[in-house]
Amino acid sequence: MNVELIDITAGAENLIAECARTCYQSEAKTAEANVKLLERLRDMGHLSTFEHAKVTFRISGISRACSHQMVRHRHFSFSRMSQRYVDEKDFAYVTPPAVEEKVEAKRIFDAQVASARKAYEALVAAGLNKEDARFVLPNAAETEIIVTANFRSLREFIKLRTTPAAQWEIRDLAQEMLRILKDKAPHAFGDL
Amino acid sequence: MNVELIDITAGAENLIAECARTCYQSEAKTAEANVKLLERLRDMGHLSTFEHAKVTFRISGISRACSHQMVRHRHFSFSRMSQRYVDEKDFAYVTPPAVEEKVEAKRIFDAQVASARKAYEALVAAGLNKEDARFVLPNAAETEIIVTANFRSLREFIKLRTTPAAQWEIRDLAQEMLRILKDKAPHAFGDL
Amino acid sequence: MNVELIDITAGAENLIAECARTCYQSEAKTAEANVKLLERLRDMGHLSTFEHAKVTFRISGISRACSHQMVRHRHFSFSRMSQRYVDEKDFAYVTPPAVEEKVEAKRIFDAQVASARKAYEALVAAGLNKEDARFVLPNAAETEIIVTANFRSLREFIKLRTTPAAQWEIRDLAQEMLRILKDKAPHAFGDL
Amino acid sequence: MNVELIDITAGAENLIAECARTCYQSEAKTAEANVKLLERLRDMGHLSTFEHAKVTFRISGISRACSHQMVRHRHFSFSRMSQRYVDEKDFAYVTPPAVEEKVEAKRIFDAQVASARKAYEALVAAGLNKEDARFVLPNAAETEIIVTANFRSLREFIKLRTTPAAQWEIRDLAQEMLRILKDKAPHAFGDL
Repeated sequence: MNVELIDITAGAENLIAECARTCYQSEAKTAEANVKLLERLRDMGHLSTFEHAKVTFRISGISRACSHQMVRHRHFSFSRMSQRYVDEKDFAYVTPPAVEEKVEAKRIFDAQVASARKAYEALVAAGLNKEDARFVLPNAAETEIIVTANFRSLREFIKLRTTPAAQWEIRDLAQEMLRILKDKAPHAFGDL
Repeated sequence: MNVELIDITAGAENLIAECARTCYQSEAKTAEANVKLLERLRDMGHLSTFEHAKVTFRISGISRACSHQMVRHRHFSFSRMSQRYVDEKDFAYVTPPAVEEKVEAKRIFDAQVASARKAYEALVAAGLNKEDARFVLPNAAETEIIVTANFRSLREFIKLRTTPAAQWEIRDLAQEMLRILKDKAPHAFGDL
Repeated sequence: MNVELIDITAGAENLIAECARTCYQSEAKTAEANVKLLERLRDMGHLSTFEHAKVTFRISGISRACSHQMVRHRHFSFSRMSQRYVDEKDFAYVTPPAVEEKVEAKRIFDAQVASARKAYEALVAAGLNKEDARFVLPNAAETEIIVTANFRSLREFIKLRTTPAAQWEIRDLAQEMLRILKDKAPHAFGDL
Repeated sequence: MNVELIDITAGAENLIAECARTCYQSEAKTAEANVKLLERLRDMGHLSTFEHAKVTFRISGISRACSHQMVRHRHFSFSRMSQRYVDEKDFAYVTPPAVEEKVEAKRIFDAQVASARKAYEALVAAGLNKEDARFVLPNAAETEIIVTANFRSLREFIKLRTTPAAQWEIRDLAQEMLRILKDKAPHAFGDL
């Protein structure tokens, strides 16, 4: 899994605070005043101003199983590698940790992925379009997806997807996103 | 593919017209006046009132490839069969028409699906959770999904997914939804 | 203020439970099983299935100040009486309780509204369009609005707008909506 | 009316093109290739990638009538000056051009606004909260609003609000936004 921050609103935390000040027509007296305001809004759950800042991540090396969970977040914007157009004869794939741990499971898993690759190639060779040949590709197949989200919806995503009930892959992804966000916007995400 | 209408707003077309009348504080003088108003709004593209009516479809017998395209429509609401929780050892699957047409492609396709089923069973037998075993399941695996959408977003979906550029499976689905909608709300969808 | 339920999804609570069952491919064994499932989803905050049911309210006798707060709920659908098109020379208006309680305030308030009405009429008489004449109309002017919302977003609205921090008018409105919803869908809203 | 661009995604047009390339796993061979791709997407109406870039505007000197139309755009994010909290005893106001043109209308208009200001002050003096006193404030009262929107929803807003059917004030606003956008992202908005 690779998570790359390819865009973040410049001065995001300050922008959020300034937007909040518009509501009350107040002014920041010191540099720290905006940070305090941001944290107060965050802790009260008054998050509408958090929508003014956004990030864009390029995420690769995740399974399509994971990207399918991701695209259910309807406040996000997505551009995903399309199996309808991209040649998948050399597709990479994600192996669940539980498979890695068991020799027999790993053998079955790898063999099955290899079999899918061969079938895909054979179907393309038999004259099928990529969009039909992909029907034999497994959920494990890797994909790449660009995700844009504002800070409010990111907080919701991270809260939901870092719980123990979340699946391991999207939980890893959410944690990696959070690590980056805490670095870039420590006050907006520091409580998570 | 099976598309079942399980809920539609009662008196949907009349409701839409009455909502539009609220904006202008006008009254319907005859039964036909509401139909005419609805069609005028539709033809002018003034569709905000079309959001007051909704349908819910139960859709089964589609591939996960198709349901993944479906869930990209972010104005819709979804409940989808979860491969994390449902035992998929007897999963049904969708065969693309282009595969059906070629004996050799069909043989490869069926063999590959059978291989995926066997690998899934073996992984579960080896102690994997369903949510990890499903990594070997193919895009062809059937799913069931409940979709709720208002009339405005339905019109957008149908316009987009019935074009020649749409994939065959979601195009078939969009056409079947349209057939049902034209029957139940002929003036709201009759122009499509 | 008058809040009229003009549409509600038939069998809303049962529909929600049946949609949830699709995810797990389970079946209701008894009539009460669906109610229990609904309440469990509700109490865990797993509310995506609550989006499959919706209501439409016709709300009149509220101020435009109140309707402006209402239209900020972006998951709702609205049709609002338009001051651009409707003749407002006899507009009704909302008087805040705090004004009603003070004789002097009430006198100022009523005089000011009467003055606005007279100015509006004079501007129309001077040849202005309604859309320009309405610039002198006060926030107190009554409006009528149709609101459609699904059960999930309704729960968010009610939680937010029934708190002590909410303004009195939208709080009254939210409480009246809740009263109706508790009657029609007691398990979906009974905890609020 | 004052429209100030306070944030725009850095390298917005390039970002959009790069996001589109992810879908097809293609690479830009020349600097112009991304511009051509962007314009092709734009002209075909394939605008989902336009969601990855956003702007934030600070808009002041518009009437509340205008801001109420603005907040109906549900894909936007807003922070608006609140009349519940801000003291409005010296409120500025917007005069429609049609009023400016007629001496008599102008006299009525200004007198009415002055009357509203006096009533507001008197109500506050009588002990009312700002949130109740504002009931007498006119639609003409100026407000300030921060608006964040992605390029896709901006295009929709501009198309809708620059037509002759749009009201003059929001049309002026949309045209000023468009002027700025054409300067900052000429290929994404150059066709409008």
